[in-house]
Amino acid sequence: MNRDPGENPHVGSLTGEEIAKHNSRDSCWVIVHNKAYDVTEFLPEHPGGPKIILKYAGKDATEEYAPIHPPDTLDKFLPKDKHLGPVNMDTVEQEVKEESPEEKERQERIKGMPKLEACYNLMDFETVARYVMKKPAWAYYSSGADDEITMRENHSAFHKIWFRPKILVDVENVDISTKMLGTKVDIPFYVTATALGKLGNPEGEVVLTRGAHKHNVIQMIPTLASCSFDEIVDAKQGDQVQWLQLYVNKDREITKKIVQHAEARGVKGLFITVDAPQLGRREKDMRTKFDDTGSNVQNTGGDNVDRSQGAARAISSFIDPSLSWKDIPWFLSITKMPILLKGVQRVEDVLKAIECGVHGVVLSNHGGRQLDTARSGIEVLAEVMPILRERGLQDKIEIYIDGGVRRATDIIKAMCLGAKGVGIGRPFLFAMSAYGLPGVDRAMQLLKDEMIMNMRLIGAAKVEDLTPDMLDIAGARSHFVTQPEDTLALRAYDALITPNEMLKGKL
Amino acid sequence: MNRDPGENPHVGSLTGEEIAKHNSRDSCWVIVHNKAYDVTEFLPEHPGGPKIILKYAGKDATEEYAPIHPPDTLDKFLPKDKHLGPVNMDTVEQEVKEESPEEKERQERIKGMPKLEACYNLMDFETVARYVMKKPAWAYYSSGADDEITMRENHSAFHKIWFRPKILVDVENVDISTKMLGTKVDIPFYVTATALGKLGNPEGEVVLTRGAHKHNVIQMIPTLASCSFDEIVDAKQGDQVQWLQLYVNKDREITKKIVQHAEARGVKGLFITVDAPQLGRREKDMRTKFDDTGSNVQNTGGDNVDRSQGAARAISSFIDPSLSWKDIPWFLSITKMPILLKGVQRVEDVLKAIECGVHGVVLSNHGGRQLDTARSGIEVLAEVMPILRERGLQDKIEIYIDGGVRRATDIIKAMCLGAKGVGIGRPFLFAMSAYGLPGVDRAMQLLKDEMIMNMRLIGAAKVEDLTPDMLDIAGARSHFVTQPEDTLALRAYDALITPNEMLKGKL
Amino acid sequence: MNRDPGENPHVGSLTGEEIAKHNSRDSCWVIVHNKAYDVTEFLPEHPGGPKIILKYAGKDATEEYAPIHPPDTLDKFLPKDKHLGPVNMDTVEQEVKEESPEEKERQERIKGMPKLEACYNLMDFETVARYVMKKPAWAYYSSGADDEITMRENHSAFHKIWFRPKILVDVENVDISTKMLGTKVDIPFYVTATALGKLGNPEGEVVLTRGAHKHNVIQMIPTLASCSFDEIVDAKQGDQVQWLQLYVNKDREITKKIVQHAEARGVKGLFITVDAPQLGRREKDMRTKFDDTGSNVQNTGGDNVDRSQGAARAISSFIDPSLSWKDIPWFLSITKMPILLKGVQRVEDVLKAIECGVHGVVLSNHGGRQLDTARSGIEVLAEVMPILRERGLQDKIEIYIDGGVRRATDIIKAMCLGAKGVGIGRPFLFAMSAYGLPGVDRAMQLLKDEMIMNMRLIGAAKVEDLTPDMLDIAGARSHFVTQPEDTLALRAYDALITPNEMLKGKL
Amino acid sequence: MNRDPGENPHVGSLTGEEIAKHNSRDSCWVIVHNKAYDVTEFLPEHPGGPKIILKYAGKDATEEYAPIHPPDTLDKFLPKDKHLGPVNMDTVEQEVKEESPEEKERQERIKGMPKLEACYNLMDFETVARYVMKKPAWAYYSSGADDEITMRENHSAFHKIWFRPKILVDVENVDISTKMLGTKVDIPFYVTATALGKLGNPEGEVVLTRGAHKHNVIQMIPTLASCSFDEIVDAKQGDQVQWLQLYVNKDREITKKIVQHAEARGVKGLFITVDAPQLGRREKDMRTKFDDTGSNVQNTGGDNVDRSQGAARAISSFIDPSLSWKDIPWFLSITKMPILLKGVQRVEDVLKAIECGVHGVVLSNHGGRQLDTARSGIEVLAEVMPILRERGLQDKIEIYIDGGVRRATDIIKAMCLGAKGVGIGRPFLFAMSAYGLPGVDRAMQLLKDEMIMNMRLIGAAKVEDLTPDMLDIAGARSHFVTQPEDTLALRAYDALITPNEMLKGKL
Repeated sequence: MNRDPGENPHVGSLTGEEIAKHNSRDSCWVIVHNKAYDVTEFLPEHPGGPKIILKYAGKDATEEYAPIHPPDTLDKFLPKDKHLGPVNMDTVEQEVKEESPEEKERQERIKGMPKLEACYNLMDFETVARYVMKKPAWAYYSSGADDEITMRENHSAFHKIWFRPKILVDVENVDISTKMLGTKVDIPFYVTATALGKLGNPEGEVVLTRGAHKHNVIQMIPTLASCSFDEIVDAKQGDQVQWLQLYVNKDREITKKIVQHAEARGVKGLFITVDAPQLGRREKDMRTKFDDTGSNVQNTGGDNVDRSQGAARAISSFIDPSLSWKDIPWFLSITKMPILLKGVQRVEDVLKAIECGVHGVVLSNHGGRQLDTARSGIEVLAEVMPILRERGLQDKIEIYIDGGVRRATDIIKAMCLGAKGVGIGRPFLFAMSAYGLPGVDRAMQLLKDEMIMNMRLIGAAKVEDLTPDMLDIAGARSHFVTQPEDTLALRAYDALITPNEMLKGKL
Repeated sequence: MNRDPGENPHVGSLTGEEIAKHNSRDSCWVIVHNKAYDVTEFLPEHPGGPKIILKYAGKDATEEYAPIHPPDTLDKFLPKDKHLGPVNMDTVEQEVKEESPEEKERQERIKGMPKLEACYNLMDFETVARYVMKKPAWAYYSSGADDEITMRENHSAFHKIWFRPKILVDVENVDISTKMLGTKVDIPFYVTATALGKLGNPEGEVVLTRGAHKHNVIQMIPTLASCSFDEIVDAKQGDQVQWLQLYVNKDREITKKIVQHAEARGVKGLFITVDAPQLGRREKDMRTKFDDTGSNVQNTGGDNVDRSQGAARAISSFIDPSLSWKDIPWFLSITKMPILLKGVQRVEDVLKAIECGVHGVVLSNHGGRQLDTARSGIEVLAEVMPILRERGLQDKIEIYIDGGVRRATDIIKAMCLGAKGVGIGRPFLFAMSAYGLPGVDRAMQLLKDEMIMNMRLIGAAKVEDLTPDMLDIAGARSHFVTQPEDTLALRAYDALITPNEMLKGKL
Repeated sequence: MNRDPGENPHVGSLTGEEIAKHNSRDSCWVIVHNKAYDVTEFLPEHPGGPKIILKYAGKDATEEYAPIHPPDTLDKFLPKDKHLGPVNMDTVEQEVKEESPEEKERQERIKGMPKLEACYNLMDFETVARYVMKKPAWAYYSSGADDEITMRENHSAFHKIWFRPKILVDVENVDISTKMLGTKVDIPFYVTATALGKLGNPEGEVVLTRGAHKHNVIQMIPTLASCSFDEIVDAKQGDQVQWLQLYVNKDREITKKIVQHAEARGVKGLFITVDAPQLGRREKDMRTKFDDTGSNVQNTGGDNVDRSQGAARAISSFIDPSLSWKDIPWFLSITKMPILLKGVQRVEDVLKAIECGVHGVVLSNHGGRQLDTARSGIEVLAEVMPILRERGLQDKIEIYIDGGVRRATDIIKAMCLGAKGVGIGRPFLFAMSAYGLPGVDRAMQLLKDEMIMNMRLIGAAKVEDLTPDMLDIAGARSHFVTQPEDTLALRAYDALITPNEMLKGKL
Repeated sequence: MNRDPGENPHVGSLTGEEIAKHNSRDSCWVIVHNKAYDVTEFLPEHPGGPKIILKYAGKDATEEYAPIHPPDTLDKFLPKDKHLGPVNMDTVEQEVKEESPEEKERQERIKGMPKLEACYNLMDFETVARYVMKKPAWAYYSSGADDEITMRENHSAFHKIWFRPKILVDVENVDISTKMLGTKVDIPFYVTATALGKLGNPEGEVVLTRGAHKHNVIQMIPTLASCSFDEIVDAKQGDQVQWLQLYVNKDREITKKIVQHAEARGVKGLFITVDAPQLGRREKDMRTKFDDTGSNVQNTGGDNVDRSQGAARAISSFIDPSLSWKDIPWFLSITKMPILLKGVQRVEDVLKAIECGVHGVVLSNHGGRQLDTARSGIEVLAEVMPILRERGLQDKIEIYIDGGVRRATDIIKAMCLGAKGVGIGRPFLFAMSAYGLPGVDRAMQLLKDEMIMNMRLIGAAKVEDLTPDMLDIAGARSHFVTQPEDTLALRAYDALITPNEMLKGKL
């Protein structure tokens, strides 16, 4: 039902023939979910540029439109008089799209997909997703800023921290539950906000809602979801808790409306994204959008900045780059929800946040999708906590981190340092894209299994037992760039051979 | 004889036909070593899950059973009334198993195996073993926890320590013998406890017993041996010394019986494993056990945690996760053997161990098979010894390490730092799996040759001459995670070519 | 027109037949741009050696000559009486050169060249250039000194510095313009001097002049340009600003003439190269020049030092290796242009430069083309600035860096540390070589786009907002040489497999 | 003549037929250089084991014998009564050896060998040598101890040291000559001692003597040369200076004779090797000697230590492992030559050496051929010099280093730190093996060219100008072992693609 909010497709009064006449920049009609819309005047304002709409001028655009727009988008942004009404879809010529060789190969890969049980850890889901997802969807989810150094650093940073486990602690009964903003959760992670869930699964973010419910963890609803906010709230079950991630709109009235609506609908925390005054350049994403017909060498330079820039750029033009510390009191005034700043990256700003009276921060670099060579959340945590403790401020605020969490050992390291919990995003998207809800379920269960096991092995029976002395963080804030190699000497070196190689050499 | 403890296979009164009727969950009989057993009631309690038994319901299960259960297991754990008696094996239908293509390839590899003399160091045995072992056996021996970072770190950690050799020391006569817990040994290593020896060699751990005797080193008998404890003790020769590694059973009476039996049989040291309240997840091992028939996407989540988890999980459910410092006095009260804690990983716990009155510790992370990103034994040794010396405690306790030892230089480094000796496990398993006793013999001899040579080269005529100033340990406790690379720049770089390449370019 | 400064090729009075007679060391005439020259006496003085000229004795040498000599070279260096006058080119036999297989392949690659829009960053131009350029041209541009360690380090050094971005700064309006030596520029980079532009594009350096104008950045004119100095100055538009890079000639009168002519023509800054008393050995360049006919094993040793040494050695013999601090006052006396030292590499020399009264320095190692394992400009900057600030000298002089800049984040890092701007060389050469002016245009635009984006993400609305606390420079001056690996252990290790690989293993 | 010191091969009185009868352990005669010897009694004492001699019992052994024994060996070590006299070689059956396929391939490679001029640096000779040398010879020269970590570290250690060049120094006239033990040399390196020169070139070490003369550098004569000591001294020209490297014999009278003979023959320095009480295990070398016929699994263990151990073990059994500091005064008493200790590896031993009154030390680890993970000479130099300077001892002794020197920049780094010079060994062996004397000549000339160039670039007109402040040695003593990688995450990562790859993907 989510997938087709239109009415009976056989009874609309508009015909395909009529719509097909409006196929130009001068008069541009499109069909979405069995209804027609006049988008002529909207063309220049489309965040993704007019070109992509004009490709569907006079035609059915639903397939392209659906994964990247919540279903209520047209109601919200297109004046009612441009809603032309239902279309008799029988009269609309169906384009018979031939399957591309690439797509055929992908379908083959899907047939030979590994069983879900063959996934033993969160990286496995990523591997499978890369294998079966459509390329642009994979590119949107998996891409990072510039050279993707920060994106990868987020994960590898955890390996700079080593354990100092305690032995001979009674760990028969291990309790991995904890509290986040007052909510009891089964394990110290939450599903962090990620955009465009329908690129990975036709149902979109509600799949994550269901997974979060099953494992009693919190879901953070993204501003840029493919499902509408209300759809995602509607999907919650029982006393399931959700938070809202917020990109602040240039029009503060819209922002206010969103925040107060969320509070009214029971959302328990407001996470204001502060690391994205502009959404990042992600070249992997941009490349998959590259249109190799119609461009030419002449048409270059500054005038094409906003075109063909990948999904990220298309969906984010409303974000307000002037948002500043001055705005925080206003947010505190419009809602009773706890307010947290998502994307804090230096201790000075954590101290400012405490002064401001917000309730928490997420140390995050936006999954490595914004500023490249920005430091990982876990590294910033190692910078922040000793200073907070020194000043007695460690309990004034809740500190979360996200980015690169793949193993329960990663979660444990963050908790030892002093985090209240960690956000996990892409891994659940990949699990959902490859296997749907069962994938999300298994991914979460694997984390729980790993967590119980590793709590035992580090000698902690409950989350509060995780303390900084259980870590060796001497290298946590170091960065080792390997020096360029001496190619000629490396090539001249004749490596040692093994007995098997000796044998093969003889055959 | 060890391989078939059953009696004359032609005279049993039970027939295959009769047994074959009991082939279901409701009535499940199996044949092991020519005797039949009713395991119907035992099914739900089987640590490895009922599924693997049901596969053999009504049939001969010996081939699957033998390598992972000591021969006295059924006597110990199955009530006598379930022992149905000898089977006339002539009446049992022999399944003609067709050799898999994989097995055929392995047999070919065995035919082309390198000669034993082609192994010049301990890594060579590992290479050959990987080449000729059955995949599940290889996976069980070679696997580590999670990403196997700690497992590999164990070896590479030795390379962080560099030598500062002395010159012009008279090293004509080099003596590499030393004492461990009062026993004189020929070289400062012992054969540490490793499980399931029959996976590598049909005779199992007694092969190691014989090798240890030949080279006058101590063998530590594992709780999870494929041979029974008594078989391994029976295999010792002359005044050969053995130690016992102990997983503490939830039922302390069983533990007490094991300990006192060991003492009675002449075992000279008790090593209580303290780094494994639960046996680790080893994904390489788990993957080889993965059964790709019969599972499906629906059947996922928490309810299958204890199935198909590889050998490690199957054999360890009896281990007591509540074992704590409070239990140590009891151990000291039930035996006169020296007691050592195996798996200590931080200096605070070494100090506690001294307070407790135990006789030693093994700084170990269980061969990297338990908690990933736990530090190596050699690194912990570098943390521990200066603090012990500072407090004058260095002689209060014997310190051993294990994990990653592959070269005599590794042993020398541990001795310089202050260890009494090092445990070596996997390398002897691999030598045994590839070449049997001659392999173990050669592996030990190679270590002795390397040791004598390298004692000379570092300028030490006897083990006591090995002192901390012979090492440069500035980097011993550092961890260098290479920062993610800038892929595009690396690809754009056009490496220097050699004159030979220039030539090829021209052809 | 630049490509053929000769006159009507059909009317010269000299004939090919006559010229062809002068084809030996005793009498050597060559045709360049439709005019004949007697170079017999010049042969022994030719910086590139006589051999390359003799190859064209009696023939048309234009194709070889043009890319590496500015058009006014013969007027400047060959006495007028050796100018023999115009040639009737109709009488000159045209050598029909068969296209080499290598060249055919290159032409194929050019046909399949990626569209300009497919270049998303500066590395992309380098990749394309490597793909489509002639090998000797690529080798000259891309090569560095010895093992090219410094050349690569220049880029990777930026990755040792990490960001500490500020959040909640109003970055609606970002201004990336700045001033260099009093000139307002749109973005804090300049096009630094690089030699032999015509190797990459038949029009040479004037293409860069046009690009610099379009984006309002400064171009530094190289001494060793393929275009003449005046051609490059003539190509400037409006109030475009240019600087001059100077190799100091052994004959100071020539130097004086060059400097004063530049000042007269409006050049606004004089950059004296101080890191190249002799031009470097660049083996990649040397190898492409290697002539495999005619040499033999006997003819080796010291006597062939100055032959076949690549383009760099051929064009630089005039440079004065005796240039020293004593000469600086003289330079200050002959011009009113600000004088900067290009190639400073230690803080001591920056302090000397301030004492000397020069106006600035460029911290540079000549793009890694001179002394290998010399440090990167960004590293030296991190050494220099704290000491200048300590002594209150940071505003006494303008500090620039060059080398390895590829991303706007690199520029931002230099500005945060205290640089006035950065020089960028090779990337624009590669953009020009692959795509001509549109390539240069796009490369500059990409940097502007990246710069605006990243200023927002670091929380800086203008260049002055970039401060040292926005960086984590703990690792900026470190060098990590990875220790040689333990080959045998690495080969014995059996890496974890992914679910997809498990699948393939089964097929 | 050197290659055949025997007399007229047609006139001996012994016949092949007669000799052929003595083909067993009971009576074993062999022909060497046209003379017959009875080695029956010598068999058990042969350092390389009897087996290799018995292979030639009753036959001509010259081809195997010549490269690894100086021609005077038999005179020295076999009693005169075992010298049977000249053989009429016409009566000796010539074995027609079929060329092995491996050797045929090598001959093909030699035909296609790159021209000498294609070698631009010392690594190039190594690459060519590896390409054209016989495998056992290559293995002997190129091998190192154990995992060859120290061997490779020797070279890469130089890359931990970076330059801080001075600018604006008058470097018109660069003088790279210096003095070593009072001898003026053209460039601060000497040809260090390396064994078995005839493995690489039929003329052996005298080729190096000639090369050293041409470039006015000192040659250190090895104890284990293939040429006899006197042959090498005879080959010197003019006032060419040589040093002697000494392995101290268990029989001190032999040692005394060697030393005093050397002094009498004009040798100017005695370098006593102190890092090799036993020659190292070099597995690459051992593997090429591995005889795959005739060995079997039974014959293993300690009893085959001294067989098939490669060339190194075979030639070194006479070395005295009891040599100690007590022996040094004796050495000082038997010769007036300056005495240096070769193979010092810690500052404590340098201080002892000064106390002892020796004239110098070579900081060396024997080219990485002895103790693996011993530190590089350049690292030890960085440890030693500051302490010597602190104590005012820097001029009490001459300090040399060897190991890993491949570039003039390496030499300059050692000189900046305070070395008097560096030894270079393998590179000249490789140059000689590939190209004979012209190769050695070019290798030395390349170093001179690099040296002059790089002196200019660092801003030093003469060797004395090289000072510690010209280096950044912050990382000189660090060791970075890269932590094991997270394989799964690395494989899941989808690297950025270049525009060319994008293109290929489309084709």
